[in-house]
Amino acid sequence: MSFTLVIHGGAGNITPAIMNKEQEQQYTEGLKASLDKGYDVLRNNGTALDAVAAAIAEMEDNPIFNAGRGAVFTKKGLNEMDAAIMDGSNLAAGAVAGVRNVKNPILLAKEVMLNSGHVFLSGGGAADFARNQGIHMEPDSYFFNQSRYDQWVEIRDTDFTQLDHKGDNLKGKEVPNTGHKFGTVGAVACDMYGNIAGGTSTGGMTNKRFGRIGDSPVIGAGTYANNATCAISCTGHGEFFLRAVVAHDVSCLMEYKGLSLQEACAIVIKDKLVKMGGEGGLIAVDAKGNYDFCFNSAGMYRGMRNSEGKEVVAYYGM
Amino acid sequence: MSFTLVIHGGAGNITPAIMNKEQEQQYTEGLKASLDKGYDVLRNNGTALDAVAAAIAEMEDNPIFNAGRGAVFTKKGLNEMDAAIMDGSNLAAGAVAGVRNVKNPILLAKEVMLNSGHVFLSGGGAADFARNQGIHMEPDSYFFNQSRYDQWVEIRDTDFTQLDHKGDNLKGKEVPNTGHKFGTVGAVACDMYGNIAGGTSTGGMTNKRFGRIGDSPVIGAGTYANNATCAISCTGHGEFFLRAVVAHDVSCLMEYKGLSLQEACAIVIKDKLVKMGGEGGLIAVDAKGNYDFCFNSAGMYRGMRNSEGKEVVAYYGM
Repeated sequence: MSFTLVIHGGAGNITPAIMNKEQEQQYTEGLKASLDKGYDVLRNNGTALDAVAAAIAEMEDNPIFNAGRGAVFTKKGLNEMDAAIMDGSNLAAGAVAGVRNVKNPILLAKEVMLNSGHVFLSGGGAADFARNQGIHMEPDSYFFNQSRYDQWVEIRDTDFTQLDHKGDNLKGKEVPNTGHKFGTVGAVACDMYGNIAGGTSTGGMTNKRFGRIGDSPVIGAGTYANNATCAISCTGHGEFFLRAVVAHDVSCLMEYKGLSLQEACAIVIKDKLVKMGGEGGLIAVDAKGNYDFCFNSAGMYRGMRNSEGKEVVAYYGM
Repeated sequence: MSFTLVIHGGAGNITPAIMNKEQEQQYTEGLKASLDKGYDVLRNNGTALDAVAAAIAEMEDNPIFNAGRGAVFTKKGLNEMDAAIMDGSNLAAGAVAGVRNVKNPILLAKEVMLNSGHVFLSGGGAADFARNQGIHMEPDSYFFNQSRYDQWVEIRDTDFTQLDHKGDNLKGKEVPNTGHKFGTVGAVACDMYGNIAGGTSTGGMTNKRFGRIGDSPVIGAGTYANNATCAISCTGHGEFFLRAVVAHDVSCLMEYKGLSLQEACAIVIKDKLVKMGGEGGLIAVDAKGNYDFCFNSAGMYRGMRNSEGKEVVAYYGM
C-alpha cells in the first residue's frame, strides 16, 4: 500500500543569488501546499490521476507559479494557458492549449480526457467546451498579477519572448530576470493500486505571440504516462522538448532498452537535450514508486512526498 | 545518388466497393501529380525537406484531399487546418494548428520551422504570423467545396464528428460515408544527401468543435523525422495516434531495439494500435531509402517513386 507524489514548479536559473529568504519561504509554502493536496488524495485511497490534478490545481491557484492565476502575459496582454494530463493505466489523455479565463486548466484537461471524445482542444473552442461542462471560469482580473504585468511591460514593445524559467529571449538578447519568473508546474504520482499519472500546466512565455504552443500540453513531449514505464512532467525551453519528444523518449528508453527510471531520465535530460541546446528538467515516477528529479539547469522548484514518510522540498542544483 | 519519395492521401475504409472508375482515376492523377512534384525536387539535387513540402502542397491544392483547398468544414462551417513538417538532419520542426485562409498550411509549417523561433503556432496567431511572413492567403470561398459542404450539412445539427477517413463518429453512431471523404495527406522523403524529412497536412474531422487538434500537427504523434531512424507521416483516428505517440514510437523501436523500418511500423500500427482500437496507417522512409506503407484499415491512398525508376500508386489493402 505504498504511494508517491512528485511535483515541480519550474526549472531554470534558480540559484541562492536570486532568491531571498522571503521568496524561499513563499516557494517552500507553495510546494508544500501542493504536496499536501495531492498526498491527501493518495492517502484516502484516491487515484494517481486525481492526486496529480489536485496537486497541480493548488499551484495554479498560487500566483507565484506561472500557471492558472499566475500565468504570464502574452504580446497582446492576455493570459493564455496550456495544460495536459495522462492516465498511465489506460493511456487516456487530455490537453488544452491557449485557453483563457479557465481557473484550473489542469481540471479542463482532465474533463477533455474523460468527456470530450477528443484528446487535444485549443483556443476559444476549448473555452466553449469548458463552459458547456460547467468548468470554473474567472474574469481577466482574477489572472492579473502585478509582477507578471511589470515583467510583460518591460518587453511588450519588443519582439522578445521571455521564457518563464530564465532571462533569455528568442532573439538572443538578454532581458533582465527579476524574481518570480519561474514556474511551469507539474505533478506525477504512483497510487496504492500501482497506477501512475502525470500532468503539466503553464502560462507559457511572457510576451509570446502567434498562439505559440510549447511542450506542456503535447502528449509525449511535456507530459506522458504509461504504467509499463513511467509518468513524466517536463519544464524548460519548450521548443527543444517538442523536437526531442522528451517525455516519451524517457519511456521508450525504459521499455525498449530496459533502463531504470533514473538512467533514462539522465540520458534524455543531461545528454541528448544538452547536445541540442535545450535547458530544463523533468520529474518522473514509475509504477513501483521509484522517482526522480532531473534537470540540466541551475535549479528546479521541486518536491516529493511518499507513503514511507519521506518529504523533499528543494530548489537548487543537486 | 539514390532518393525516395513516399506519399499518402489518407487511410480508412477504402475498398473497391466504394470507388468507381472515375474516382480511381481522380486519385491516381492526384497522387501521381504529387509524386511528380516531389520527385522533381529530389532529381534536381533538392532536399528531402523541400520535396516533402512540394509533394504535400500539390495535394493541398487538389480538392479531392482533406487538406488545404479540400479541407472539411468545422461545426461552425469554417475550414480550419493543421500541418507539421520535420527535418531529420537536425530535428528542426514546425507545426500549425487551427489555421484559416492559408493556401498551403505545409508551407506555413515550414516557415514556422525556419523563421519563427518556435515549433508550434495555433489559431489566429498562426495566421497573423503567416501574413507577416508573406505566406499566400486565400479567401474563404477558395476553400469551398460542394461535396465537403454537403457532408457537413448532413451532420452539422448533430453532436457527431466525422472522421475524414471513415463514416464513424465519436458518439458511436454511424454516419453514412459517401465518397470523397478520405484524405489527410502526408509525405516522407530520403534525398541524395542521405537526409530524410516528413510532413503531414489535414483539414481534420468534419463538424469538429472546440478547436480540436488531431495528431497531424503534433511532432512525435502524426509527424516525425530523424536521420538516425526514420521519417514518418500518419493518417487515421488522430486521438489514438496522439495517445500512442505513434511516429516517435516507430523511431524508438528502431533506435533502441534495433528493429528494421518495416518491423517497427508493423508493431506500432498492426499490433499496439489495433489493441488500443485505433484505425489508420502511416508512410515511412529511412536514410538508406528503405520505405514502407503500413495500415490496419481497409485501404490507404498511397504512392512511391524512387531513383531506381520504381513507381507505386495504390489504394486498397495489400
